[in-house]
Amino acid sequence: MRTHLCGALRSEHIGQTVSVCGWVGRRREHGEHLAFVDLRDHSGIVQCVINHDVDVRSEYVLKITGVVRERPEGTINENIPTGDVEIGECEVEILRVATPPPFPIDERADDVDENIRLQYRYLDLRRSRMQKNLRVRSAVNAAVRNSMHDQGFVEVETPMLVPSTPEGAREFLVPSRKEPGSFYALPQSPQLFKQLLMVGGVDRYYQIARCLRDEDLRADRQYEFMQLDMEMSFVNQDDVLDAVSQSVLAAAEAVTGERPEPIERITWHDAMNRFGIDKPDLRFGMELQELTAIFSSTEFKAFAGAEAIKGIKVDGGAAEYGRNQLDKLTDKAKSAGAKGLVWLKATDEGFDSPVAKFLSDDEVAALKETMSVATGDLVLIVADDWEPTCEVLGMLRNEIGRPPVHQGPYRYVWVVEFPLFVGRDKETGNPKSGHHPFTMPHPDDIDKFESDPMSVRSIAYDLVLNGWELGSGSIRIHEPELQRKVFAGLGISDEEAERKFGFFLNPFEYGAPPHGGFAFGLDRLVAILAGEDNIREVIAYPKTQSGQDPMTNSPIPGDPKALEELGLKVLPQVD
Amino acid sequence: MRTHLCGALRSEHIGQTVSVCGWVGRRREHGEHLAFVDLRDHSGIVQCVINHDVDVRSEYVLKITGVVRERPEGTINENIPTGDVEIGECEVEILRVATPPPFPIDERADDVDENIRLQYRYLDLRRSRMQKNLRVRSAVNAAVRNSMHDQGFVEVETPMLVPSTPEGAREFLVPSRKEPGSFYALPQSPQLFKQLLMVGGVDRYYQIARCLRDEDLRADRQYEFMQLDMEMSFVNQDDVLDAVSQSVLAAAEAVTGERPEPIERITWHDAMNRFGIDKPDLRFGMELQELTAIFSSTEFKAFAGAEAIKGIKVDGGAAEYGRNQLDKLTDKAKSAGAKGLVWLKATDEGFDSPVAKFLSDDEVAALKETMSVATGDLVLIVADDWEPTCEVLGMLRNEIGRPPVHQGPYRYVWVVEFPLFVGRDKETGNPKSGHHPFTMPHPDDIDKFESDPMSVRSIAYDLVLNGWELGSGSIRIHEPELQRKVFAGLGISDEEAERKFGFFLNPFEYGAPPHGGFAFGLDRLVAILAGEDNIREVIAYPKTQSGQDPMTNSPIPGDPKALEELGLKVLPQVD
Repeated sequence: MRTHLCGALRSEHIGQTVSVCGWVGRRREHGEHLAFVDLRDHSGIVQCVINHDVDVRSEYVLKITGVVRERPEGTINENIPTGDVEIGECEVEILRVATPPPFPIDERADDVDENIRLQYRYLDLRRSRMQKNLRVRSAVNAAVRNSMHDQGFVEVETPMLVPSTPEGAREFLVPSRKEPGSFYALPQSPQLFKQLLMVGGVDRYYQIARCLRDEDLRADRQYEFMQLDMEMSFVNQDDVLDAVSQSVLAAAEAVTGERPEPIERITWHDAMNRFGIDKPDLRFGMELQELTAIFSSTEFKAFAGAEAIKGIKVDGGAAEYGRNQLDKLTDKAKSAGAKGLVWLKATDEGFDSPVAKFLSDDEVAALKETMSVATGDLVLIVADDWEPTCEVLGMLRNEIGRPPVHQGPYRYVWVVEFPLFVGRDKETGNPKSGHHPFTMPHPDDIDKFESDPMSVRSIAYDLVLNGWELGSGSIRIHEPELQRKVFAGLGISDEEAERKFGFFLNPFEYGAPPHGGFAFGLDRLVAILAGEDNIREVIAYPKTQSGQDPMTNSPIPGDPKALEELGLKVLPQVD
Repeated sequence: MRTHLCGALRSEHIGQTVSVCGWVGRRREHGEHLAFVDLRDHSGIVQCVINHDVDVRSEYVLKITGVVRERPEGTINENIPTGDVEIGECEVEILRVATPPPFPIDERADDVDENIRLQYRYLDLRRSRMQKNLRVRSAVNAAVRNSMHDQGFVEVETPMLVPSTPEGAREFLVPSRKEPGSFYALPQSPQLFKQLLMVGGVDRYYQIARCLRDEDLRADRQYEFMQLDMEMSFVNQDDVLDAVSQSVLAAAEAVTGERPEPIERITWHDAMNRFGIDKPDLRFGMELQELTAIFSSTEFKAFAGAEAIKGIKVDGGAAEYGRNQLDKLTDKAKSAGAKGLVWLKATDEGFDSPVAKFLSDDEVAALKETMSVATGDLVLIVADDWEPTCEVLGMLRNEIGRPPVHQGPYRYVWVVEFPLFVGRDKETGNPKSGHHPFTMPHPDDIDKFESDPMSVRSIAYDLVLNGWELGSGSIRIHEPELQRKVFAGLGISDEEAERKFGFFLNPFEYGAPPHGGFAFGLDRLVAILAGEDNIREVIAYPKTQSGQDPMTNSPIPGDPKALEELGLKVLPQVD
């Protein structure tokens, strides 16, 4: 039907008779007899010179056959790759007339209300931004799969209709027709099935898996999401991290054309200490500085006796941050759990700050030296227990310094050695799992289970890109003694373990190999690589934040006949 | 953790110290001090010689480090690739003890009740048959995707939570929590979304899509199935068939190592005429022979005036088919809609048959010549309208001659030019759609819409392998005039069209390009390529025929709290 794509025509085609197909973009009349028409397909646009009296309008679908020729001098368009040429002597075949679109099919639609864009998603998708995003996504998927395949991973498709497990995030239910009153669930992840594949000797499994969670939607969360899900047997952490790194770097290379550097690693403790967060954004500095020793014998009450005193420095921030903004930062620090926030503006002499008078000359000098403070810098200090001190400053660091997530450079980092236990259950006082209760403890810390459980590290790891958590994983416990020990640490009795986790752990009795795995979210990776801050821009048909699809108008009230077959009744709703 | 896979060791490794990991297969004591252990991973097994007093049993998970050595003469096992070598001087690390499995982890499990195999699927999967099947599937997926990718198709993931459409097969519903009483459906296919991708200018789309239908399960049908789904713009039938052929042949090549011949084509009419079915199995002959002219002036009442008289010949079948079997064939023919079945056993003189006396000498001679009948052959004849004649004989041909579906050679065939209309609605008398109402009619037949609608061909096509329909597709109607004409042919008013199909067709008003597509079932293709007759054997975690998963025990009764959130009540069940 066509000989060339619209966006493919160049000077080298001059003189050739070509056929192109696509949609009418702009039309401009040219004198009395002619009109310029931009014909658009996914590859780009090409200018066609047609007779004035050919009735083609915006978004008509055309096949145009004509001769490629040089554009007249002065009409060359350097902004588009086909800008040197145009198609003349056009024979126009109208393949489909079109109703005028509700918004222009170009970058102006970026400002259109998102609900309208989603209602007419099939028009929104015609735009070069969306065409590019879909193609980035396709390229990432292909690169990830090829990398896993080349590394000997077997793609296994796990079921969509799975057992309901009341633990964990809220799940979607699917009523059974054969057993009215019974339900399947849609998978939140293939965790159970992939670990059983390891018990089943599959050795290396991967899948780009569709997962669903019935949780509130936001910029980085949809009901449905895609994850690269993988699991390996007879491996240690390095093997898993290497395998995942290969596929992530291959994805990045497929989009950017450049293979990123090997992914660096940081322990969870260092990430907290230096960046105040377990998903550090390494694209900018402003690291947390350790100040506790400086104030070890301070007179300043707010610092005295604090477990940890840390600060960040905003270069040249003194002038930028007036009283109002500093009050706002203080409010944010407090709502993040800080007792307070100390700010100091560096002057030639010392510091301008409400608390300057409480600091000794030695403290001021040591502070300036430790943080390399120059006149005009702003210093923010928090003093509290170690974890809240880190967290509050990490929040402020991101608040002040973090660029939009998709902005380059891409900084991948593995965060390793997450704590095995995080926080304690308010009722029982028992430690809670950091990752999940099947996570392997760090072998060096096993003797601390009773003496100092909160310091026990685990073989759990996250992959972080530009401050977004892409995914997480762990080496799993494969043998019962250790599993019992961890359950005991969590205050889970044998009986409770059997009741809650028997379906998962009993198969291990038949011979579970040592194994570990990982899962990372492709929506987020694709969004960042496509230069988008919102994952909806890289999903062909996303749901709105209220969970609806304005294009197909779903969900809709249940059909009474179908509900009857399912043995269900919709209860009257109370407002 | 290991240096080699178990199945990879060969004579060339002799003298090397290796580490292997896996499960204990067989253990045989050898004298007083030694024992042979077969260690198994997904790649195969290797024999290890261990000390008699090392307590390792069936399905224990081990790491064995030792030295590869030649097997003593007389103990070489030519049945396995590692049969020339064994591992000696073994250091055995028990990674996990194991409970004895409920069935042996080898080919003997083929005879175990399928429910038991599925209950312990993680053990069943350890067997080489299942390991191979999963790997065939993975290889097919990779080959299909790479082929589509290389042909410029963009992979787009369409939603799992889609609008409910009461038309078509029965769908699974998913209750909405945000809008109690409203429901999403799980997709039966991405048809709507993929055609809107074409309206959206995506140009070439593909996806290995998960589809779900709430229909009864059987050997070739599960609730969930995977299909290669694709759609292209600005193309004709040849473009679609070529693109799909590329990917199917690539899949076959990935499994068998050989690229099959280009896929042949047959029209629907020829398929019916020659094979009596729209999914002909070309692996065997026994084609339907046209006999109508022979009996044009017959005295035999059952033949006289019949629209079509056709026969098949079973070479040497006269002896094989006794009266009992012939009665059974006759019964089958009748329950398939035939008025009767005429059988004739060829003798040296003429035919041995209850109806032989009604046939003239000329008819007997012409019959023998037309069908090249030799003494001892069995001839089966049906006389009726053309379509039932073909169908009944096609059924008998498959019944008598068809090998198991997975048995080679692989014979792919495109069946093209399906009728646009098939049968008539009993109430209204209107023709019904053969494929779906958006299928493009054959351009040569458009003038027959009113004069002879049942003879109108369509641009719809099926791909058939060894008599299994792998998938179907069509060129779609993209412009409104023709769509209205087809709706009129189906007796669908403008109002009904708008109500039923408006959500689908209104977007076309904004400029639908000419487009067409295809979808084929990967479960069936993989089953055949893996040599299996039942798709459950190529699915990691299938449901039983009653829709249950005995491994995870799903579905289960709904959690009252979850149902309350969904605004649903389970009605009491009446037996």
